Amino acid sequence: MTPSSLPSIRLKPKTQARAIRHGFPWVFDNELVTDRRTKALTPGTVAVLEDGERTPIATVAVNPKSRIMARVLDLDPAAQIDQTWLELRLRRAFQMRERLFEAPFYRLVHAEADGLPGLIIDRFGDIAVIQPNAAWAEVLLPQIVAALVEVTAVTCVIKNASGRARALEGLDDETVALMSDLPDAPLPVPMNGATYMADLTGGQKTGLFYDQRTNHAFAATLAKDSRVLDVFSHVGGFSLAALAAGASAALAIDGSQPALELAGEGAARMGFTQHFATRRGDAFDVMTSLAEVGEKFDVVICDPPAFAPNKQALEKGLRAYERVARLATPLVAEGGFLGLCSCSHAATLDKFRTACTRGIGRAGREGALIHTGFAGPDHPLHPQLAESGYLKSLFFRL
Amino acid sequence: MTPSSLPSIRLKPKTQARAIRHGFPWVFDNELVTDRRTKALTPGTVAVLEDGERTPIATVAVNPKSRIMARVLDLDPAAQIDQTWLELRLRRAFQMRERLFEAPFYRLVHAEADGLPGLIIDRFGDIAVIQPNAAWAEVLLPQIVAALVEVTAVTCVIKNASGRARALEGLDDETVALMSDLPDAPLPVPMNGATYMADLTGGQKTGLFYDQRTNHAFAATLAKDSRVLDVFSHVGGFSLAALAAGASAALAIDGSQPALELAGEGAARMGFTQHFATRRGDAFDVMTSLAEVGEKFDVVICDPPAFAPNKQALEKGLRAYERVARLATPLVAEGGFLGLCSCSHAATLDKFRTACTRGIGRAGREGALIHTGFAGPDHPLHPQLAESGYLKSLFFRL
Repeated sequence: MTPSSLPSIRLKPKTQARAIRHGFPWVFDNELVTDRRTKALTPGTVAVLEDGERTPIATVAVNPKSRIMARVLDLDPAAQIDQTWLELRLRRAFQMRERLFEAPFYRLVHAEADGLPGLIIDRFGDIAVIQPNAAWAEVLLPQIVAALVEVTAVTCVIKNASGRARALEGLDDETVALMSDLPDAPLPVPMNGATYMADLTGGQKTGLFYDQRTNHAFAATLAKDSRVLDVFSHVGGFSLAALAAGASAALAIDGSQPALELAGEGAARMGFTQHFATRRGDAFDVMTSLAEVGEKFDVVICDPPAFAPNKQALEKGLRAYERVARLATPLVAEGGFLGLCSCSHAATLDKFRTACTRGIGRAGREGALIHTGFAGPDHPLHPQLAESGYLKSLFFRL
Repeated sequence: MTPSSLPSIRLKPKTQARAIRHGFPWVFDNELVTDRRTKALTPGTVAVLEDGERTPIATVAVNPKSRIMARVLDLDPAAQIDQTWLELRLRRAFQMRERLFEAPFYRLVHAEADGLPGLIIDRFGDIAVIQPNAAWAEVLLPQIVAALVEVTAVTCVIKNASGRARALEGLDDETVALMSDLPDAPLPVPMNGATYMADLTGGQKTGLFYDQRTNHAFAATLAKDSRVLDVFSHVGGFSLAALAAGASAALAIDGSQPALELAGEGAARMGFTQHFATRRGDAFDVMTSLAEVGEKFDVVICDPPAFAPNKQALEKGLRAYERVARLATPLVAEGGFLGLCSCSHAATLDKFRTACTRGIGRAGREGALIHTGFAGPDHPLHPQLAESGYLKSLFFRL
């Protein structure tokens, strides 16, 4: 494939090419000349982006069905997007993770910030789980798998197609093994000295997220000899890390029985069954009833689902975060710690902090903010996509 | 001292007492009825704050010479601000640090967020260094020292009066021993596995700051087998932590020869003299000359002084941060890491990140942001004083 063989798309005459040249990785539909030819391009087509004066400025992936109509793959308009190119990008991402982590369990590729727009790859030892959340990655999936095996020597590759972003790109949602078979049992994953059980086939959203790793680690520093409450626990992210760090007891609350069972299995493998309990139910209800009977914990962490996934849901979402803080506060012992997390893109750090502070205040307490954490370093941010910093984690001492 | 014996000060009729009741710790001069009697109060006088309707709402410390004319000591207007009260606050602060840190080297009291407005106390083993940056703390210094000894059993207490905030409160700037003698030699301080030498008498600003501890620790995770450049190194904050974590070599640059000598002494105590070098000079000049000879490092960290200490200096300060990023970028090896810090109140996280990104871009590189860090948990923030979050530390992978 020579550069000249690629189709081209063009910025509207008055659209500044400067942002692209300075590293902004997206071109929106309203910035492009969208003639019939452009609209007819197959989603995922690799093309040359030209500025308003028809000068080639980048190699991009086009998806006429998406509002992000072009994603920059390479600022070299003559780049060849083939297995060799993919290996270079993957190797760069791989080298950083190998430097950061002692064991091969991490997010290997975090989309734009790793130079692979819309592509997510999580690594679980010999298994890689790919989320091709942009059309180009779906089209080039065979090359991505080949490059991935070349770089990391994984022996099993799974495509997880449950990401919300895929619908925006007009992609399917099936989860399949692309190489080797789907694992038939949950997989033990070592992290922060704990063992988490991950069900990678993902039928019940019982996989594993690496993004909270550094926040788990911070919470664990507070947890020695403590009673820990892990609200919205999923497979036990905060509670198992706390037990590994010497917590005397941990209680995990979640709405999903399969997730709680995996948490229990993790605790059992760690030898902490005696110190670990679970309670299935609506987190708001369970927190309310624990408060009614006067239960107190030294460390309480709430890691709810995204209450404000988009701007429309922001006000409602912030009220929900405030409510979480208000209901959790009475469960924190005097001098204890409250960790509050948000994985909502739309809730900025300032707004989320205000909601948390207000919730603590409405529960009649005051908190000093001792730690603000984000996603770990295997989830790098593209510096020009501030909104990609979705995860915030605040720890208060009450 | 009975509550009724305290003088009272009053909010102007239309000033909302709500903020105070909700935990805001400051009352500004323009919010108070400042009659002759109020203006005549001795700086540091403990008084009862009344709302516009003369209802007592808090116990405060008054300083008619400061724009922050009253600082809330206790929301109980009948509180007795005596040694017992001070011990309660100190014990609360002490318990958290003892939980967080393995050795007694930490910031023990961080002002408003620890319920002791304007008061800073750093602990170095058996020595405590007090910065009474508000007049009330100067007045109550004997009681503070007594309470401090009672709670922590330190055997030496030093008053460090070099803080900029003291001038705003109309206080002197002498550094003296309040209990026992000033130590006659630099003190070894263990942190992140390294040994730092702290000259607590502070004649050359060669004390030690604990605020970067968690950022030192993050940098250290990147440093194994790496060549590290520590720009604006002071006594070797980042470089010694990196050596402790397995860096192959570290070079510290600073303008202060005494600071570099202390850094060298720390390296010697750690047994790393062979791996550690220093270079005295203007950091901008030294970075430029290192780039001219093509020097590259795997990890470069720049921790400059506050370039934007106030709003007036913001634009100039941001340009200086951008320049630091631009000059440091060429010194980072391909795939290496660049850590950029700001201790400027006025430079918000967004503005600082933009300046850094721009500087990296102007040097012709792109960086993925892998970590955003703040001051460590012994520097808690009062949730209603966002500006107290002065320290930001950004790590990019280039």
